[in-house]
Amino acid sequence: MSYVAPVKDMLFCMQELADLESVAKLPGFEDAGLETAQAVLEECAKFNEGVLAPLNFEGDKNPSSWKDGKVTTTPGFKEAFKQFGEGGWQGLQHPADFGGQGLPKTIGAACIEMLNSANVSFALCPLLTDGAIEALLTAGSPEQQQTYLPKMISGEWTGTMNLTEPQAGSDLALVRTRAEPQGDGTYKIFGTKIFITYGEHDMAPNIIHLVLARVAGAPEGVKGISLFLVPKFRLNADGSPGERNDAHCVSIEHKLGIKASPTAVLQFGDHGGAIGELIGEENRGLEYMFIMMNAARYAVGMQGIAVAERSYQKAVQYARDRVQSRPVDGSLPGSAPIIHHPDVRRMLMTMRSLTEGCRAMAITAAAAHDAQHASPDADARKQNQAFYEFMVPLVKGYSTEMSLEVTDLGVQVHGGMGFIEETGAAQYYRDAKILTIYEGTTAIQANDLVGRKTMRDGGQTAKAIAKQIEVTEAALAKSGTPAAQAMLKALSAGRAAFVDVVDFVVANGKTKPNAVFAGSVPYLMLAGNVVAGWQLARALLVAEAQLAKGEGDTAFLTAKVATARFYAEHILTRASSVRAAILEGADSVTALALDAF
Amino acid sequence: MSYVAPVKDMLFCMQELADLESVAKLPGFEDAGLETAQAVLEECAKFNEGVLAPLNFEGDKNPSSWKDGKVTTTPGFKEAFKQFGEGGWQGLQHPADFGGQGLPKTIGAACIEMLNSANVSFALCPLLTDGAIEALLTAGSPEQQQTYLPKMISGEWTGTMNLTEPQAGSDLALVRTRAEPQGDGTYKIFGTKIFITYGEHDMAPNIIHLVLARVAGAPEGVKGISLFLVPKFRLNADGSPGERNDAHCVSIEHKLGIKASPTAVLQFGDHGGAIGELIGEENRGLEYMFIMMNAARYAVGMQGIAVAERSYQKAVQYARDRVQSRPVDGSLPGSAPIIHHPDVRRMLMTMRSLTEGCRAMAITAAAAHDAQHASPDADARKQNQAFYEFMVPLVKGYSTEMSLEVTDLGVQVHGGMGFIEETGAAQYYRDAKILTIYEGTTAIQANDLVGRKTMRDGGQTAKAIAKQIEVTEAALAKSGTPAAQAMLKALSAGRAAFVDVVDFVVANGKTKPNAVFAGSVPYLMLAGNVVAGWQLARALLVAEAQLAKGEGDTAFLTAKVATARFYAEHILTRASSVRAAILEGADSVTALALDAF
Repeated sequence: MSYVAPVKDMLFCMQELADLESVAKLPGFEDAGLETAQAVLEECAKFNEGVLAPLNFEGDKNPSSWKDGKVTTTPGFKEAFKQFGEGGWQGLQHPADFGGQGLPKTIGAACIEMLNSANVSFALCPLLTDGAIEALLTAGSPEQQQTYLPKMISGEWTGTMNLTEPQAGSDLALVRTRAEPQGDGTYKIFGTKIFITYGEHDMAPNIIHLVLARVAGAPEGVKGISLFLVPKFRLNADGSPGERNDAHCVSIEHKLGIKASPTAVLQFGDHGGAIGELIGEENRGLEYMFIMMNAARYAVGMQGIAVAERSYQKAVQYARDRVQSRPVDGSLPGSAPIIHHPDVRRMLMTMRSLTEGCRAMAITAAAAHDAQHASPDADARKQNQAFYEFMVPLVKGYSTEMSLEVTDLGVQVHGGMGFIEETGAAQYYRDAKILTIYEGTTAIQANDLVGRKTMRDGGQTAKAIAKQIEVTEAALAKSGTPAAQAMLKALSAGRAAFVDVVDFVVANGKTKPNAVFAGSVPYLMLAGNVVAGWQLARALLVAEAQLAKGEGDTAFLTAKVATARFYAEHILTRASSVRAAILEGADSVTALALDAF
Repeated sequence: MSYVAPVKDMLFCMQELADLESVAKLPGFEDAGLETAQAVLEECAKFNEGVLAPLNFEGDKNPSSWKDGKVTTTPGFKEAFKQFGEGGWQGLQHPADFGGQGLPKTIGAACIEMLNSANVSFALCPLLTDGAIEALLTAGSPEQQQTYLPKMISGEWTGTMNLTEPQAGSDLALVRTRAEPQGDGTYKIFGTKIFITYGEHDMAPNIIHLVLARVAGAPEGVKGISLFLVPKFRLNADGSPGERNDAHCVSIEHKLGIKASPTAVLQFGDHGGAIGELIGEENRGLEYMFIMMNAARYAVGMQGIAVAERSYQKAVQYARDRVQSRPVDGSLPGSAPIIHHPDVRRMLMTMRSLTEGCRAMAITAAAAHDAQHASPDADARKQNQAFYEFMVPLVKGYSTEMSLEVTDLGVQVHGGMGFIEETGAAQYYRDAKILTIYEGTTAIQANDLVGRKTMRDGGQTAKAIAKQIEVTEAALAKSGTPAAQAMLKALSAGRAAFVDVVDFVVANGKTKPNAVFAGSVPYLMLAGNVVAGWQLARALLVAEAQLAKGEGDTAFLTAKVATARFYAEHILTRASSVRAAILEGADSVTALALDAF
């Protein structure tokens, strides 16, 4: 088996860290208890391990291709997408009103991870469709919702996000695509969009493009951008795909990774104008787009965890099989499987602990998302919203940056074989690199963390998280086991560093913006590291308590303690260096004269 | 221009850090003063910028290909290799007796960097030839030397290193290739070698394979391995290539990077036996091979610096050109080139300071190599040998690991464009990944650092380096400028961490080998970081002194101070975290049960 879903760890995170029991008490999620979670995850594992994982390497060797405006996906993708839809996987987290299963994100997040471990290139299609569904649920008219959502949620049609233009990447203020009102409620769209994931493909009979464009006379900058729905095929009166719309794929990109996922250049309106409908109100497009984007950012964070998990599994397998050199401690008489060598263990433990730490962080964040939306209590909704929104840049930024470290080590464990494409380890290294870039680069996540998530509330949410960490520290102190003590030392130092940096950001954000933004990505990495470490600290406490009581799966729990301790001693310890760089090194970031580079 | 050689920085490193003046006083290097260095570097820059750099992207798009046992290299490579030989570049550091130029490594190292910045795939051919030349110079018979060296040093014929077999990578004890004495002084060689760089190609009329093999009855393990010279074409009586030898390329690998460099599977003896000559004595093959390998390891370190430099230059160019978003400090009214954004500056400074730090370390090490070989004073030879040998794993290990960080940032600076292969930034990311693997993985370098370079002399060389660093610290304290103070703080903390780890390694290497080797790579990264930082500290002092006197190139020297300070505050500060992980986290590396992975 090329991939085995870590169902046990996912359920542990849900149950012990994200308090699935409480999620299942929220209105609407009554059926989403442990039993449901287990059943869904097992079914999901079966599909992803059996159908999508085997197509992953194939997609890299035999990627999507373009000819005469049409894109042909990797053999097997179309059939797999059919099965994906029929299995109800596209609708997992979407409302039952439109045919979805209405499961909480706490469970859905694990399914997203599996999907992306199995096949990140494939997974991008449903990921973008999810985003389009979210935007329509938020801002679409009832008629638009009735027309499009059932087909998208069932996995029949797919969706896209059309933001980027050659001159407008991170800076959407520069969007130039035009929308001309036709007087009949429709608009004609003209412009070029690039980097459109699954902007064209052969897996579905229709593609629903959501497109940012400007109506003539709109304000400059981001306040003059509207969101339009432009279907590849306009609909007949009966809702079936009819006339081809004037939105054409003129090329797809030749990329470092995620090669099976077609990245399209879309030309709107070269033959008279693409017909689109406005979504919501004019000039509020960016606001709606952010809804899609926030969901997508969280999902991209899960992609980081997913690729890391798969890279880890492959490296473990190789380290067990590859025999090379005698163990340094002389414990075996001859050459041994390389998993016996301490440095290979260090690499595998780094991969494992980063992956488990980020998974724990992401699933805990998902539970806050569920409470934010479903809690009957307004205060709880507000608190959970603040927490979740703080987590989004960490889940996106930290989990994807860590996936670069993990997939690098994944290649490294394989030695020379890792550099050979047939081995497959290098694919993860290549695939992962997009994750720190799309849906907002790590720097864009860090801007969000500094500006909207830290400065705006004067560091209140950040400090509230630090307080919660202190509660965990107190429990570690009370436990007093060697592992708990090691964790306590690293976590309290990490938390203190985090608080120092939050204070620095709040104090200087307005007066010394260059100094604060010079440390924005390091701050994000520090915060992600500490929050992931905190969740592993909680996991350690749960595991030790269960072991003490003789409950649960001893091997799993013992491994959790060992993994958490490794994270504390090797990953959390990075926090103090980052603190020093941010607080003391801000000026040297911008000291070099521009013409001296 | 796609690449501009950093001649100014190279000359600064040679003159101010590596004391080129002293090198030029060594017997044999009398002509190798600043004037020579400058002339050689400028000529070298012209060739690499003009001829090889433009072929780099082409080699990636249009790599070496195999058909019916023959390998065709990228169009342009053959002609470029002819120019390379005619320019005398292959013979740069080799003895004048055999047609070389006999330049010191202090100058040669910079030329190697340029060659690899321009085209790392191309550079591998001369790099391997250099290794074969070194081995023949050390262990070849006078006749072998007369027969082969002039042709190799002139760049007419190329050389290879045949170590790896499918079951024998890092563990050469497992080599199985056989050599059967024919009674006429020759041997017949039988076996399969993999990962043979430029094992077959069309750029030269002959290829001199150096091959590790076992003579029947030889001891088991590494003590039974001999080194053989197996030319692709056996020589006619007049020394010209004659009969085709039974050494055939059966395939080349499909790799993540360095695609233009053919990585061959060579089959020896499938048609009766490849005829080879013994080099040196039987069963001493590994010893000779290590001579090649040590030269090659240093050169691979230079490859790391080289790829990092090119990635940096490309990122700077993009950051100047790409306009996106307003500066956070409001210093410009509209969207600005992204080099104005603090996080882009942080990325560029990280790339720059790592590259300059490693270059300073490598060129200083090269001067020690020159003194080790050419000094008339036995004590000086011995001291310089100890220093140089300590440096080799750092130059190889740290410079290549840092090149992964730099080339990742190089892609990141480009945003989405970085992920598109046409941009070219991704090639460096892919190319760099082999550098931490071949000629000994980072773990193998770290084993060398721990075992041969630290434990064997009880930490004496390491401590001597720490003492030298303290001398620099004293000078920083005396200077007292803000930059010197910042450097002093980081360097003294880094040096203290280094000493702590050396003590730990020496104290526990024999009794707790797992604990020590669990921290071997972190120790290497710490040592490399501190030594590179130390060289930048020396550079800072020189630059500030010259600035104070109104001497030298103000812009260059000011930039050097800024770069060194950035390194101190953002890179050297990593040392304390690494120290903690090594000293306190050793047990958690190997705590997880083998079957729990």
